[in-house]
Amino acid sequence: MRPLILVTNDDGGSAPGIRNLIDFMNEIGELVIVAPANPQSGMSHSITVRDPIRLKKIKTNNHHSEYECSGTPVDCVKLALDQILTRKPDLIVSGINHGSNASINVIYSGTVSAAIEGAIMSIPSVAFSILDYSWENDYSHYKKFVQSIVRNVLENGLPERICLNVNIPFIDAAQIKGIKICRQAIGYWDEEFEKRTDPSKSDYYWIKGLYKNCDAGEDTDEWALKNNYISVVPVTTDYTQHDSIVKLNKRPFHV
Amino acid sequence: MRPLILVTNDDGGSAPGIRNLIDFMNEIGELVIVAPANPQSGMSHSITVRDPIRLKKIKTNNHHSEYECSGTPVDCVKLALDQILTRKPDLIVSGINHGSNASINVIYSGTVSAAIEGAIMSIPSVAFSILDYSWENDYSHYKKFVQSIVRNVLENGLPERICLNVNIPFIDAAQIKGIKICRQAIGYWDEEFEKRTDPSKSDYYWIKGLYKNCDAGEDTDEWALKNNYISVVPVTTDYTQHDSIVKLNKRPFHV
Repeated sequence: MRPLILVTNDDGGSAPGIRNLIDFMNEIGELVIVAPANPQSGMSHSITVRDPIRLKKIKTNNHHSEYECSGTPVDCVKLALDQILTRKPDLIVSGINHGSNASINVIYSGTVSAAIEGAIMSIPSVAFSILDYSWENDYSHYKKFVQSIVRNVLENGLPERICLNVNIPFIDAAQIKGIKICRQAIGYWDEEFEKRTDPSKSDYYWIKGLYKNCDAGEDTDEWALKNNYISVVPVTTDYTQHDSIVKLNKRPFHV
Repeated sequence: MRPLILVTNDDGGSAPGIRNLIDFMNEIGELVIVAPANPQSGMSHSITVRDPIRLKKIKTNNHHSEYECSGTPVDCVKLALDQILTRKPDLIVSGINHGSNASINVIYSGTVSAAIEGAIMSIPSVAFSILDYSWENDYSHYKKFVQSIVRNVLENGLPERICLNVNIPFIDAAQIKGIKICRQAIGYWDEEFEKRTDPSKSDYYWIKGLYKNCDAGEDTDEWALKNNYISVVPVTTDYTQHDSIVKLNKRPFHV
């Protein structure tokens, strides 16, 4: 039996990134695609609790069925698991996202959150992103890298409640030096909101920022990407910073 | 000089939880309050990138100014830091959330994400939640606990890029045994979407789930709360699962 693969993303079902990923995965397994109806960039791990969620069937055949969901990437995963799939998938893949999800972007990313949701549900899950924003470019020459990672995960599984955050440098595939397991680089977005005035004289803001890298470590995803490697960060679903438990216990709270 | 405290939440500025938190913080510092205009439950770390963000001044005096923001809790923090505050705040507090943010809820929570955003920006930050959904209850008798945690953080700071996720059991304050530093319990939401049909005969879904705890550890937040302790989990902004780097390096990718 071919593996059952759930495919999603945050750019929506028509994005070239997910179309490429679907092509790559079609050679490996049976696919169920549940993608957001509208772009969901920056939606992180949000779920739709106050609005109804709509689900639209796009096409179905024996080895490939496709749906459009009005919600977030995490809604797509939850809805697929509860309402669409008849068995637990062997793998969840999310992406290929248009734009980097390295470093601190992991926290804001809807693409990675879909994979984190898979990890919470103990399903091997991988998020793919490419350092390119254009919808004009074709990513088919990265196929061998994406398929290699997916086949490795299908064969060996992943550590319990861990997913992979994969970023691909946007360079000629022949120049890619390999696949590197990394840690998330320390960094942040330095925001500078742009204030504008609408025709009825009310102010509004657009979010606008510059990424600041604070980490020169050669074991980071930012370093790997700058040095022509594909970066793979194992991402946890346990947000506890365990070392701090000991530190904080040394300074008791006085009530 | 009194410390400058930024206050936000995800239930919106009129929620009793944030009104109580504002009362508690007014005794400690100068306050700037930037709360969402509308409830933002389940918004996690999402940011508003595709819509304009509106900001409305509610009131301002010397020691207490208050704003309403159309965006998410993380938008509130980012907008406050860039557009409202004239200096870096000494502390960010978020909450008091109506409902638990223990265990896996940390990942879905807008309340905790506001504190995580503070940690990313190297500002000591604390998220408070209470295990009660009612908007009728008064939380003023938990004041001494909240103030004790805040004073401890103002005095000692927090480890770099770490924030605190505090949950309060909804029991008589006299029954609370103390404040316990914990790790996040392993658990997940078991979803069962409710399918309905609207008047124009289209289907839609409401998200609906049951929390499943998979962790009997006595060092977890779930255990602490069940045993009448306030739980405090140090939350990381580094989502790398470092132990897995070694494991994954033992199974090379073949391209």
